[in-house]
Amino acid sequence: MKLYDVTAAPNPRRVRIFAAEKGIELELVPVDMAKAEHKTPEFLKKHPSGKIPALETDDGQFLGESVAICRYLEALHPEPNLFGSTAYELGRIEMHNRILELEFWTQIGISWVNGPVVAKMAPGRFKQNPAAKEASDKNVHAFYKRMDRELAERDFMAGDRYTVADITALSGVDFARGMVGLPPEESLSNLWAWHTRVSERPSASA
Amino acid sequence: MKLYDVTAAPNPRRVRIFAAEKGIELELVPVDMAKAEHKTPEFLKKHPSGKIPALETDDGQFLGESVAICRYLEALHPEPNLFGSTAYELGRIEMHNRILELEFWTQIGISWVNGPVVAKMAPGRFKQNPAAKEASDKNVHAFYKRMDRELAERDFMAGDRYTVADITALSGVDFARGMVGLPPEESLSNLWAWHTRVSERPSASA
Repeated sequence: MKLYDVTAAPNPRRVRIFAAEKGIELELVPVDMAKAEHKTPEFLKKHPSGKIPALETDDGQFLGESVAICRYLEALHPEPNLFGSTAYELGRIEMHNRILELEFWTQIGISWVNGPVVAKMAPGRFKQNPAAKEASDKNVHAFYKRMDRELAERDFMAGDRYTVADITALSGVDFARGMVGLPPEESLSNLWAWHTRVSERPSASA
Repeated sequence: MKLYDVTAAPNPRRVRIFAAEKGIELELVPVDMAKAEHKTPEFLKKHPSGKIPALETDDGQFLGESVAICRYLEALHPEPNLFGSTAYELGRIEMHNRILELEFWTQIGISWVNGPVVAKMAPGRFKQNPAAKEASDKNVHAFYKRMDRELAERDFMAGDRYTVADITALSGVDFARGMVGLPPEESLSNLWAWHTRVSERPSASA
Protein backbone atom coordinates (compact mmCIF):
# COMPACT_ATOMS: atom_id res chain seq x y z
CA MET A 1 0.00 0.00 0.00
CA LYS A 2 1.13 3.52 -0.78
CA LEU A 3 0.65 6.45 1.55
CA TYR A 4 0.78 9.90 -0.03
CA ASP A 5 2.65 11.67 2.68
CA VAL A 6 4.10 14.92 4.02
CA THR A 7 6.71 14.22 6.70
CA ALA A 8 6.14 17.29 8.89
CA ALA A 9 2.34 17.36 8.75
CA PRO A 10 0.36 15.99 11.71
CA ASN A 11 -2.34 14.06 9.83
CA PRO A 12 -0.10 11.73 7.81
CA ARG A 13 1.86 11.14 11.02
CA ARG A 14 -1.32 9.77 12.60
CA VAL A 15 -1.53 7.13 9.87
CA ARG A 16 2.20 6.34 10.02
CA ILE A 17 2.00 5.78 13.80
CA PHE A 18 -1.18 3.72 13.44
CA ALA A 19 0.40 1.49 10.78
CA ALA A 20 3.58 1.12 12.87
CA GLU A 21 1.50 -0.06 15.85
CA LYS A 22 -0.05 -2.69 13.58
CA GLY A 23 3.26 -3.69 12.00
CA ILE A 24 1.98 -2.66 8.56
CA GLU A 25 4.59 -1.40 6.09
CA LEU A 26 3.44 1.49 3.94
CA GLU A 27 5.32 2.74 0.91
CA LEU A 28 5.60 6.47 1.57
CA VAL A 29 5.16 8.71 -1.48
CA PRO A 30 6.17 12.30 -0.67
CA VAL A 31 3.84 15.03 -1.94
CA ASP A 32 5.18 18.57 -2.36
CA MET A 33 2.46 20.83 -0.97
CA ALA A 34 4.52 23.95 -1.77
CA LYS A 35 4.12 23.00 -5.45
CA ALA A 36 0.39 22.28 -4.81
CA GLU A 37 0.83 18.68 -5.95
CA HIS A 38 -2.13 17.79 -3.72
CA LYS A 39 -4.44 20.05 -5.76
CA THR A 40 -3.77 18.63 -9.22
CA PRO A 41 -6.67 16.92 -11.07
CA GLU A 42 -4.75 13.65 -10.80
CA PHE A 43 -4.39 13.93 -7.03
CA LEU A 44 -8.06 14.87 -6.62
CA LYS A 45 -8.86 11.35 -7.87
CA LYS A 46 -6.99 10.06 -4.82
CA HIS A 47 -8.66 12.44 -2.34
CA PRO A 48 -11.53 14.59 -3.62
CA SER A 49 -10.70 17.32 -1.09
CA GLY A 50 -7.05 17.53 -2.20
CA LYS A 51 -5.66 16.69 1.22
CA ILE A 52 -2.80 14.68 2.63
CA PRO A 53 -2.67 11.83 3.52
CA ALA A 54 -4.30 9.57 0.93
CA LEU A 55 -3.92 5.83 0.68
CA GLU A 56 -3.62 3.74 -2.48
CA THR A 57 -4.65 0.17 -1.73
CA ASP A 58 -2.93 -2.87 -3.20
CA ASP A 59 -5.79 -3.22 -5.70
CA GLY A 60 -5.52 0.41 -6.82
CA GLN A 61 -8.38 1.98 -4.89
CA PHE A 62 -8.03 5.24 -2.98
CA LEU A 63 -9.00 6.51 0.44
CA GLY A 64 -8.56 9.94 1.97
CA GLU A 65 -8.91 11.20 5.56
CA SER A 66 -6.56 9.88 8.23
CA VAL A 67 -9.15 8.17 10.40
CA ALA A 68 -10.85 6.57 7.39
CA ILE A 69 -7.48 5.13 6.35
CA CYS A 70 -6.89 3.90 9.91
CA ARG A 71 -10.30 2.20 10.01
CA TYR A 72 -9.49 0.45 6.74
CA LEU A 73 -6.18 -0.73 8.21
CA GLU A 74 -7.93 -1.88 11.40
CA ALA A 75 -10.41 -3.93 9.36
CA LEU A 76 -7.57 -5.57 7.40
CA HIS A 77 -5.33 -6.08 10.45
CA PRO A 78 -7.56 -6.28 13.53
CA GLU A 79 -4.69 -6.79 16.02
CA PRO A 80 -3.52 -5.01 18.06
CA ASN A 81 -6.96 -3.45 18.39
CA LEU A 82 -6.89 0.35 18.41
CA PHE A 83 -10.56 1.33 17.86
CA GLY A 84 -12.29 -0.86 20.44
CA SER A 85 -13.74 -4.36 20.72
CA THR A 86 -17.05 -4.29 22.59
CA ALA A 87 -19.92 -2.03 21.51
CA TYR A 88 -19.37 0.29 24.45
CA GLU A 89 -15.60 0.44 23.95
CA LEU A 90 -16.09 1.19 20.24
CA GLY A 91 -18.31 4.10 21.25
CA ARG A 92 -16.06 5.30 24.04
CA ILE A 93 -12.88 5.39 21.91
CA GLU A 94 -14.76 7.12 19.08
CA MET A 95 -16.06 9.66 21.59
CA HIS A 96 -12.63 10.51 22.95
CA ASN A 97 -11.05 10.57 19.51
CA ARG A 98 -13.72 12.99 18.30
CA ILE A 99 -13.49 15.23 21.35
CA LEU A 100 -9.77 15.53 20.64
CA GLU A 101 -10.42 16.39 17.03
CA LEU A 102 -13.38 18.71 17.56
CA GLU A 103 -12.15 20.61 20.60
CA PHE A 104 -8.34 20.39 20.32
CA TRP A 105 -7.23 19.84 16.70
CA THR A 106 -9.70 22.39 15.30
CA GLN A 107 -8.29 25.02 17.65
CA ILE A 108 -4.68 24.16 16.81
CA GLY A 109 -5.68 24.46 13.14
CA ILE A 110 -7.13 27.95 13.61
CA SER A 111 -3.98 29.10 15.43
CA TRP A 112 -1.87 27.54 12.68
CA VAL A 113 -3.57 29.12 9.65
CA ASN A 114 -3.68 32.50 11.38
CA GLY A 115 -0.10 32.28 12.66
CA PRO A 116 3.26 33.58 11.43
CA VAL A 117 4.55 30.36 9.81
CA VAL A 118 1.60 30.09 7.41
CA ALA A 119 1.62 33.87 6.78
CA LYS A 120 5.25 33.52 5.64
CA MET A 121 4.98 30.13 3.89
CA ALA A 122 1.77 30.79 1.98
CA PRO A 123 1.23 34.56 1.87
CA GLY A 124 -2.35 35.46 0.99
CA ARG A 125 -3.53 31.82 1.14
CA PHE A 126 -5.52 32.48 4.33
CA LYS A 127 -6.95 35.87 5.26
CA GLN A 128 -5.27 36.45 8.61
CA ASN A 129 -7.65 36.84 11.54
CA PRO A 130 -5.76 37.82 14.72
CA ALA A 131 -8.92 37.77 16.88
CA ALA A 132 -9.58 34.16 15.84
CA LYS A 133 -5.99 33.18 16.67
CA GLU A 134 -6.16 34.84 20.08
CA ALA A 135 -9.31 32.86 20.91
CA SER A 136 -7.96 29.54 19.62
CA ASP A 137 -4.63 29.95 21.47
CA LYS A 138 -6.65 30.26 24.67
CA ASN A 139 -8.78 27.25 23.77
CA VAL A 140 -5.70 25.09 23.16
CA HIS A 141 -4.31 25.98 26.58
CA ALA A 142 -7.66 25.35 28.24
CA PHE A 143 -7.81 21.94 26.55
CA TYR A 144 -4.32 21.06 27.81
CA LYS A 145 -5.59 21.71 31.34
CA ARG A 146 -8.57 19.46 30.72
CA MET A 147 -6.31 16.67 29.40
CA ASP A 148 -4.14 17.02 32.48
CA ARG A 149 -7.18 16.73 34.78
CA GLU A 150 -8.54 13.70 32.96
CA LEU A 151 -5.13 11.99 32.87
CA ALA A 152 -5.12 12.09 36.66
CA GLU A 153 -7.82 9.40 36.45
CA ARG A 154 -6.64 7.24 33.57
CA ASP A 155 -3.35 6.46 31.83
CA PHE A 156 -4.47 6.95 28.25
CA MET A 157 -6.80 9.26 26.38
CA ALA A 158 -9.73 6.85 26.07
CA GLY A 159 -9.18 4.63 29.10
CA ASP A 160 -6.60 2.26 30.51
CA ARG A 161 -4.97 1.22 27.27
CA TYR A 162 -3.32 2.81 24.23
CA THR A 163 -5.75 3.49 21.36
CA VAL A 164 -6.20 5.61 18.26
CA ALA A 165 -7.18 8.49 20.57
CA ASP A 166 -3.60 8.59 21.91
CA ILE A 167 -2.29 8.79 18.37
CA THR A 168 -4.61 11.73 17.66
CA ALA A 169 -3.55 13.46 20.86
CA LEU A 170 0.19 12.89 20.40
CA SER A 171 0.19 14.15 16.82
CA GLY A 172 -1.79 17.21 17.89
CA VAL A 173 0.39 18.06 20.89
CA ASP A 174 3.62 17.61 18.94
CA PHE A 175 2.40 19.74 16.04
CA ALA A 176 1.20 22.47 18.42
CA ARG A 177 4.58 22.42 20.20
CA GLY A 178 6.80 22.16 17.16
CA MET A 179 5.04 24.21 14.51
CA VAL A 180 2.43 26.45 16.14
CA GLY A 181 4.34 27.71 19.20
CA LEU A 182 1.76 26.29 21.64
CA PRO A 183 3.49 23.85 24.01
CA PRO A 184 1.62 22.69 27.12
CA GLU A 185 2.61 24.49 30.32
CA GLU A 186 5.34 22.67 32.22
CA SER A 187 3.16 22.43 35.33
CA LEU A 188 0.77 19.98 33.62
CA SER A 189 2.53 16.93 35.00
CA ASN A 190 -0.11 14.31 34.13
CA LEU A 191 -0.14 15.47 30.53
CA TRP A 192 3.65 15.39 30.30
CA ALA A 193 3.82 11.94 31.93
CA TRP A 194 1.35 10.66 29.32
CA HIS A 195 3.41 12.34 26.61
CA THR A 196 6.54 10.50 27.76
CA ARG A 197 4.59 7.22 27.98
CA VAL A 198 3.31 7.38 24.40
CA SER A 199 6.48 8.94 22.94
CA GLU A 200 8.57 6.02 24.23
CA ARG A 201 6.67 3.61 22.02
CA PRO A 202 8.65 2.76 18.85
CA SER A 203 5.68 3.88 16.72
CA ALA A 204 6.13 7.51 17.82
CA SER A 205 9.07 7.97 15.50
CA ALA A 206 7.11 6.76 12.46
CA MET B 1 -31.79 3.56 26.32
CA LYS B 2 -32.15 7.25 27.05
CA LEU B 3 -31.08 9.98 24.68
CA TYR B 4 -30.48 13.41 26.21
CA ASP B 5 -31.96 15.49 23.45
CA VAL B 6 -32.71 18.94 22.05
CA THR B 7 -35.41 18.74 19.39
CA ALA B 8 -34.23 21.59 17.13
CA ALA B 9 -30.48 20.88 17.28
CA PRO B 10 -28.86 19.06 14.35
CA ASN B 11 -26.61 16.66 16.28
CA PRO B 12 -29.28 14.88 18.33
CA ARG B 13 -31.34 14.65 15.12
CA ARG B 14 -28.51 12.61 13.57
CA VAL B 15 -28.83 10.05 16.35
CA ARG B 16 -32.64 10.05 16.21
CA ILE B 17 -32.58 9.39 12.44
CA PHE B 18 -29.89 6.71 12.85
CA ALA B 19 -31.90 4.92 15.55
CA ALA B 20 -35.09 5.16 13.46
CA GLU B 21 -33.31 3.53 10.49
CA LYS B 22 -32.32 0.67 12.82
CA GLY B 23 -35.76 0.41 14.40
CA ILE B 24 -34.30 1.21 17.83
CA GLU B 25 -36.57 3.02 20.26
CA LEU B 26 -34.85 5.66 22.37
CA GLU B 27 -36.42 7.32 25.38
CA LEU B 28 -35.93 11.03 24.65
CA VAL B 29 -35.01 13.18 27.65
CA PRO B 30 -35.27 16.88 26.78
CA VAL B 31 -32.43 19.09 28.01
CA ASP B 32 -33.00 22.83 28.36
CA MET B 33 -29.88 24.46 26.93
CA ALA B 34 -31.22 27.95 27.67
CA LYS B 35 -31.02 26.99 31.36
CA ALA B 36 -27.53 25.52 30.73
CA GLU B 37 -28.72 22.12 31.95
CA HIS B 38 -26.00 20.58 29.75
CA LYS B 39 -23.27 22.37 31.74
CA THR B 40 -24.20 21.17 35.23
CA PRO B 41 -21.73 18.93 37.11
CA GLU B 42 -24.28 16.13 36.89
CA PHE B 43 -24.59 16.41 33.13
CA LEU B 44 -20.80 16.56 32.70
CA LYS B 45 -20.74 12.98 34.00
CA LYS B 46 -22.85 12.05 30.99
CA HIS B 47 -20.74 13.98 28.46
CA PRO B 48 -17.47 15.51 29.72
CA SER B 49 -17.74 18.31 27.14
CA GLY B 50 -21.25 19.29 28.25
CA LYS B 51 -22.81 18.71 24.84
CA ILE B 52 -26.02 17.29 23.46
CA PRO B 53 -26.73 14.50 22.62
CA ALA B 54 -25.60 12.03 25.24
CA LEU B 55 -26.75 8.44 25.58
CA GLU B 56 -27.48 6.53 28.75
CA THR B 57 -27.21 2.80 28.08
CA ASP B 58 -29.52 0.21 29.60
CA ASP B 59 -26.78 -0.68 32.09
CA GLY B 60 -26.29 2.94 33.16
CA GLN B 61 -23.17 3.85 31.20
CA PHE B 62 -22.84 7.08 29.24
CA LEU B 63 -21.64 8.07 25.80
CA GLY B 64 -21.36 11.49 24.21
CA GLU B 65 -20.77 12.58 20.59
CA SER B 66 -23.35 11.72 17.95
CA VAL B 67 -21.18 9.47 15.82
CA ALA B 68 -19.83 7.62 18.86
CA ILE B 69 -23.42 6.92 19.91
CA CYS B 70 -24.27 5.78 16.37
CA ARG B 71 -21.28 3.41 16.32
CA TYR B 72 -22.43 1.93 19.61
CA LEU B 73 -25.92 1.43 18.16
CA GLU B 74 -24.45 -0.12 14.98
CA ALA B 75 -22.44 -2.60 17.07
CA LEU B 76 -25.56 -3.58 19.07
CA HIS B 77 -27.86 -3.68 16.03
CA PRO B 78 -25.73 -4.39 12.94
CA GLU B 79 -28.64 -4.34 10.46
CA PRO B 80 -29.41 -2.40 8.37
CA ASN B 81 -25.73 -1.59 8.01
CA LEU B 82 -25.02 2.15 7.93
CA PHE B 83 -21.23 2.37 8.49
CA GLY B 84 -19.98 -0.19 5.93
CA SER B 85 -19.29 -3.90 5.73
CA THR B 86 -16.05 -4.56 3.85
CA ALA B 87 -12.76 -2.94 4.89
CA TYR B 88 -12.83 -0.60 1.91
CA GLU B 89 -16.48 0.34 2.41
CA LEU B 90 -15.86 1.04 6.10
CA GLY B 91 -13.07 3.39 5.03
CA ARG B 92 -15.03 4.99 2.24
CA ILE B 93 -18.11 5.78 4.35
CA GLU B 94 -15.91 7.13 7.16
CA MET B 95 -14.11 9.30 4.60
CA HIS B 96 -17.31 10.83 3.23
CA ASN B 97 -18.83 11.26 6.66
CA ARG B 98 -15.71 13.09 7.83
CA ILE B 99 -15.48 15.28 4.74
CA LEU B 100 -19.07 16.35 5.45
CA GLU B 101 -18.24 17.13 9.04
CA LEU B 102 -14.86 18.77 8.48
CA GLU B 103 -15.68 20.84 5.42
CA PHE B 104 -19.45 21.43 5.68
CA TRP B 105 -20.64 21.18 9.29
CA THR B 106 -17.69 23.17 10.66
CA GLN B 107 -18.53 26.01 8.26
CA ILE B 108 -22.25 25.92 9.12
CA GLY B 109 -21.19 26.07 12.77
CA ILE B 110 -19.06 29.17 12.25
CA SER B 111 -21.90 30.92 10.42
CA TRP B 112 -24.29 29.88 13.19
CA VAL B 113 -22.29 31.12 16.19
CA ASN B 114 -21.49 34.38 14.40
CA GLY B 115 -25.03 34.88 13.11
CA PRO B 116 -28.05 36.86 14.30
CA VAL B 117 -29.97 34.01 15.98
CA VAL B 118 -27.15 33.19 18.42
CA ALA B 119 -26.38 36.88 18.97
CA LYS B 120 -30.00 37.30 20.10
CA MET B 121 -30.45 33.95 21.91
CA ALA B 122 -27.16 33.97 23.82
CA PRO B 123 -25.88 37.55 23.87
CA GLY B 124 -22.17 37.72 24.73
CA ARG B 125 -21.74 33.92 24.65
CA PHE B 126 -19.68 34.10 21.44
CA LYS B 127 -17.58 37.10 20.46
CA GLN B 128 -19.11 37.96 17.10
CA ASN B 129 -16.69 37.81 14.18
CA PRO B 130 -18.37 39.09 10.98
CA ALA B 131 -15.29 38.36 8.82
CA ALA B 132 -15.38 34.72 9.93
CA LYS B 133 -19.10 34.49 9.12
CA GLU B 134 -18.59 36.02 5.67
CA ALA B 135 -15.91 33.41 4.88
CA SER B 136 -17.93 30.46 6.22
CA ASP B 137 -21.10 31.51 4.37
CA LYS B 138 -19.07 31.36 1.15
CA ASN B 139 -17.61 27.99 2.11
CA VAL B 140 -21.07 26.52 2.76
CA HIS B 141 -22.26 27.62 -0.69
CA ALA B 142 -19.09 26.28 -2.32
CA PHE B 143 -19.65 22.95 -0.57
CA TYR B 144 -23.27 22.78 -1.84
CA LYS B 145 -21.90 23.10 -5.37
CA ARG B 146 -19.44 20.29 -4.71
CA MET B 147 -22.23 18.06 -3.33
CA ASP B 148 -24.28 18.79 -6.43
CA ARG B 149 -21.38 17.83 -8.73
CA GLU B 150 -20.67 14.61 -6.83
CA LEU B 151 -24.36 13.65 -6.72
CA ALA B 152 -24.36 13.68 -10.53
CA GLU B 153 -22.28 10.50 -10.25
CA ARG B 154 -23.87 8.68 -7.34
CA ASP B 155 -27.25 8.63 -5.59
CA PHE B 156 -26.06 8.94 -2.02
CA MET B 157 -23.28 10.74 -0.18
CA ALA B 158 -20.90 7.80 0.16
CA GLY B 159 -21.91 5.69 -2.84
CA ASP B 160 -24.94 3.87 -4.19
CA ARG B 161 -26.73 3.23 -0.94
CA TYR B 162 -28.01 5.19 2.06
CA THR B 163 -25.49 5.40 4.92
CA VAL B 164 -24.60 7.45 7.99
CA ALA B 165 -23.05 10.02 5.62
CA ASP B 166 -26.53 10.82 4.29
CA ILE B 167 -27.77 11.36 7.82
CA THR B 168 -24.88 13.75 8.47
CA ALA B 169 -25.56 15.62 5.24
CA LEU B 170 -29.34 15.85 5.71
CA SER B 171 -29.07 17.13 9.28
CA GLY B 172 -26.51 19.70 8.15
CA VAL B 173 -28.47 20.94 5.13
CA ASP B 174 -31.73 21.20 7.08
CA PHE B 175 -30.08 23.08 9.95
CA ALA B 176 -28.35 25.45 7.52
CA ARG B 177 -31.67 26.07 5.74
CA GLY B 178 -33.89 26.33 8.76
CA MET B 179 -31.75 28.01 11.40
CA VAL B 180 -28.73 29.64 9.73
CA GLY B 181 -30.33 31.22 6.65
CA LEU B 182 -28.11 29.27 4.25
CA PRO B 183 -30.32 27.19 1.91
CA PRO B 184 -28.74 25.61 -1.18
CA GLU B 185 -29.34 27.53 -4.40
CA GLU B 186 -32.39 26.28 -6.28
CA SER B 187 -30.31 25.53 -9.38
CA LEU B 188 -28.48 22.67 -7.63
CA SER B 189 -30.84 20.02 -8.95
CA ASN B 190 -28.80 16.93 -8.04
CA LEU B 191 -28.53 18.12 -4.46
CA TRP B 192 -32.25 18.83 -4.24
CA ALA B 193 -33.12 15.47 -5.81
CA TRP B 194 -30.97 13.75 -3.17
CA HIS B 195 -32.64 15.87 -0.50
CA THR B 196 -36.07 14.70 -1.61
CA ARG B 197 -34.85 11.09 -1.77
CA VAL B 198 -33.56 11.03 1.80
CA SER B 199 -36.33 13.23 3.23
CA GLU B 200 -38.98 10.78 2.00
CA ARG B 201 -37.61 8.07 4.26
CA PRO B 202 -39.71 7.69 7.43
CA SER B 203 -36.58 8.24 9.55
CA ALA B 204 -36.27 11.85 8.36
CA SER B 205 -39.05 12.95 10.69
CA ALA B 206 -37.36 11.43 13.74
